[in-house]
Amino acid sequence: MKSDWKDWQKTRAYRRLQELARKPYDLTVADALLRDGRLNSYICRSDFFSLFYAGQRVDDQVLAVLQDLADECGLVGQFAAMRRGAVMNRIEGFDSENRQVLHTACRDLFTDSPAEPKAAAQAREEIEKLRTFLHELEDGTIRNAQGEDFTTMIHIGIGGSDLGPRSVFEALRPYAREGRAVHFISNVDPDDAAAVLKKVDLRRTLVNVVSKSGTTLETLANESLVRQALIEAGLEPGKQCLAVTGKGSPMDNPERYLRSFHMFDYIGGRYSTTSMVGAVMLGFCLGIDQILDFLRGAAAMDCGAENFRLRENLPLLLAMLGVWNHNFLGAPTLAVLPYSQALLRFPAHLQQCDMESNGKSVTRYGTPVACKTGPVLWGEPGTNGQHAFYQLLHQGTELVPVEFIGFRKSQYGEDLEIEGTSSQQKLLANLLAQSVAMAVGQKNPNPNREFSGNRPNSILLGDRLTPASMGALLALYEAKIVFQGFLWNINSFDQEGVQLGKVLAGRFLKNINEQEPKSRSLEAAVLKAVGGGPEGRK
Amino acid sequence: MKSDWKDWQKTRAYRRLQELARKPYDLTVADALLRDGRLNSYICRSDFFSLFYAGQRVDDQVLAVLQDLADECGLVGQFAAMRRGAVMNRIEGFDSENRQVLHTACRDLFTDSPAEPKAAAQAREEIEKLRTFLHELEDGTIRNAQGEDFTTMIHIGIGGSDLGPRSVFEALRPYAREGRAVHFISNVDPDDAAAVLKKVDLRRTLVNVVSKSGTTLETLANESLVRQALIEAGLEPGKQCLAVTGKGSPMDNPERYLRSFHMFDYIGGRYSTTSMVGAVMLGFCLGIDQILDFLRGAAAMDCGAENFRLRENLPLLLAMLGVWNHNFLGAPTLAVLPYSQALLRFPAHLQQCDMESNGKSVTRYGTPVACKTGPVLWGEPGTNGQHAFYQLLHQGTELVPVEFIGFRKSQYGEDLEIEGTSSQQKLLANLLAQSVAMAVGQKNPNPNREFSGNRPNSILLGDRLTPASMGALLALYEAKIVFQGFLWNINSFDQEGVQLGKVLAGRFLKNINEQEPKSRSLEAAVLKAVGGGPEGRK
Repeated sequence: MKSDWKDWQKTRAYRRLQELARKPYDLTVADALLRDGRLNSYICRSDFFSLFYAGQRVDDQVLAVLQDLADECGLVGQFAAMRRGAVMNRIEGFDSENRQVLHTACRDLFTDSPAEPKAAAQAREEIEKLRTFLHELEDGTIRNAQGEDFTTMIHIGIGGSDLGPRSVFEALRPYAREGRAVHFISNVDPDDAAAVLKKVDLRRTLVNVVSKSGTTLETLANESLVRQALIEAGLEPGKQCLAVTGKGSPMDNPERYLRSFHMFDYIGGRYSTTSMVGAVMLGFCLGIDQILDFLRGAAAMDCGAENFRLRENLPLLLAMLGVWNHNFLGAPTLAVLPYSQALLRFPAHLQQCDMESNGKSVTRYGTPVACKTGPVLWGEPGTNGQHAFYQLLHQGTELVPVEFIGFRKSQYGEDLEIEGTSSQQKLLANLLAQSVAMAVGQKNPNPNREFSGNRPNSILLGDRLTPASMGALLALYEAKIVFQGFLWNINSFDQEGVQLGKVLAGRFLKNINEQEPKSRSLEAAVLKAVGGGPEGRK
Repeated sequence: MKSDWKDWQKTRAYRRLQELARKPYDLTVADALLRDGRLNSYICRSDFFSLFYAGQRVDDQVLAVLQDLADECGLVGQFAAMRRGAVMNRIEGFDSENRQVLHTACRDLFTDSPAEPKAAAQAREEIEKLRTFLHELEDGTIRNAQGEDFTTMIHIGIGGSDLGPRSVFEALRPYAREGRAVHFISNVDPDDAAAVLKKVDLRRTLVNVVSKSGTTLETLANESLVRQALIEAGLEPGKQCLAVTGKGSPMDNPERYLRSFHMFDYIGGRYSTTSMVGAVMLGFCLGIDQILDFLRGAAAMDCGAENFRLRENLPLLLAMLGVWNHNFLGAPTLAVLPYSQALLRFPAHLQQCDMESNGKSVTRYGTPVACKTGPVLWGEPGTNGQHAFYQLLHQGTELVPVEFIGFRKSQYGEDLEIEGTSSQQKLLANLLAQSVAMAVGQKNPNPNREFSGNRPNSILLGDRLTPASMGALLALYEAKIVFQGFLWNINSFDQEGVQLGKVLAGRFLKNINEQEPKSRSLEAAVLKAVGGGPEGRK
């Protein structure tokens, strides 16, 4: 594998791109979007989405060199190797997690020859356990003490065990089964749990506790809070709590849980939505068939990511356009703006998946990187954002590339024509208008009404947000992130940067506990300064 | 006024800061946080919050020059003039909104000598109207056709009429009155409205329509959708809809609304949360006394912002530290990270308030700015974020300054001790740990476990999140943003950058409507390329 890892900044393509970046395609000249059939040729189509990228500051030449760069660095080959079980989560020559990266196996269920048969078999086994469990909820095998159905699930998890599952749940609400509700607790802030516990009928509630390591402080604290509440209500936690955890973790204890589902050490938290981490809660809410559709959409995208042709490989293209904007045109952030209220938490999921994966400063050889790695990713749904931060996108001094996401049809199909157009049409019209405005800009004799344009953006357009297209969308961004990590030569699968905070938090807690902190440590001094010693104990 | 507007880059202080920025305070050397009593002296206290800023890369010298800069540019004087009715919303020599900026008057109710008596009197009048209305809901004067109480409010607004009110509603949920629920519709996405309409009992629902101009496309579309639903349910919209709008706007029509409340042209949308834009919904939910507490907190912060001493003026200090990080240390973004689940939407509000105010490229004289103006602001609550994007904050190649927000006590006071500490203590310990880790960093022989430190951050700590402290927090950031705008010499009160998108959206809608778009316009070509013409009509 190591021979495949090339220093991308030493390739011919890199130097060529640096030259081309001095004079990137100018979107503000007359007919810039229409020239050379650009609008109709800068489209990459896949099963569930098409990417319209005429609004990026690229031309055929740049695209050709981006293809060369992807080839020289063997990006598609590395992706294929990852899916087939290569040990990609490691730092050469240093202590590291040293694991395979096989979140793609969770959805590799729809072929007779999965890329990594062992992991795919484990995924299949978990899916079958889930199918059985959901069936037993259905046919009355599993009921509460009063013989009633369970109508509610509290999903307890944080980070990867929360953001991905929650954003998919929000996205697929319209497909939820009648009479099944889901609530989430993630934050160690006790108010988060308190607010949820106020809302639910505990007797009819399943508690889904999700932690890969089985040691996540926030999740265990919230589990304890909820178990306490169950006991106070005269209920038996062991009959209502489910566990989703790594095999052999401290939480992997069937005596404490009604049912246990597993994930495996080759699945990273932020890539785990299509594993049981997401599937148990989504299965409760949507049913097994919708889950399979969701996985099918993701699987299709994974397969598409093995196409060597840049302009036909949606995740690779999105990755390379991002690199062009970030490393060559110098944009430090990326805005992902879905024109779909259902995707309101999707940017938060991507923020985690992208920034935790690629917010790194060390290569896979343990040397300092010599380039910018992952950007700051952020976003909110449109048209809401238009009335908020778009001012800066159009006229600010920071260059913010935008990835728009939209759909031709609404989910509910409940709409009203006003002045001859439906709300869904207005939504789409706004998306297109913003894309064009950012690219083309506008001259004006009033300098305050001038738009400089040349703000690069693309539009990812789907037909409708469904379980299958949601799966594809999730897998698209997972693969995009992975491709960028391969190119930058970093390990996109560990997260050593979260360790120091954990260690220090432990030290602070130790000091908070001491009645009379005699320690001369920094922690004791900080606690004294903020008054957290005595007041925190009240 | 113009004589007060100084080109900050031509001041002596600016040049001095450029020199100092070459060697900013190094937080990673031994005892960097403890030297010179730094931990205990780099604290700015106000009525509801203290700012701990030892984790910023400043020393006494930098702070002294930042004070000089604030003085030379007359920032506090401009703030005082704004509160007293100066016409600050304008561009000299060009067509502009040319208005006063008096959102502060909405809460200037607690003194006999308000800064701008006319606007304060108008605010008082609206508050009295609200008091009467809430009282009539209470004593049964206002009921539905069946003689029942109204239990639910749908708040329809977007941008400034949504993000601020909604984030305050989320923050103050624990103070909500029993039996009063609020739902929000903002997006023109029809699924947003459909999801809310599924949840409510329309008979017992008031509909609060909020648009300053009375012409906001999304809000009017959603109002129509909801009115339609009311009519289909056999109800009379005019007896259940409320209007919050500018005096004289097209929506200012008492015949169509049960009750109308006003805001005024001197209040910008993103600064309008303490006007009737926020107060009607919050009043329904919390009651008039809590609203007054909320306003009182904001008023106290406004008064504090007129202190000329930088280190005692919380908003001014926060503004100048931000300028140091953004303009002198080169950080393009700002993360606001509240360790409070209740503040989950507060970063989204700030994102609007800050980026729409200061995402500008033209000075108040209509000349191009020669400096970076507003940063990209983003954030999510901790500890959730720790399990998401903090990896990049600690080890990424982008420098992201952080403003932490925390509270010593939880809102509900429902907590559980696990391993000797409560969840609230764990929350605080995590906040402090992250702050220290980012500042100090850590050496490690494994390069992947090394933390470079010197990532500037501060902690804004309050006792508890209450209506009053929420008001103070809101006003703090409003004033901070305004101070930065004064310094950069931009108009923080207009939003010309959103106009082009609106115009283009109209053109797209026109083309969508044509059965056979013959037009050779860019819009027609784009619609054809994305297939929005025929498919959009289905």
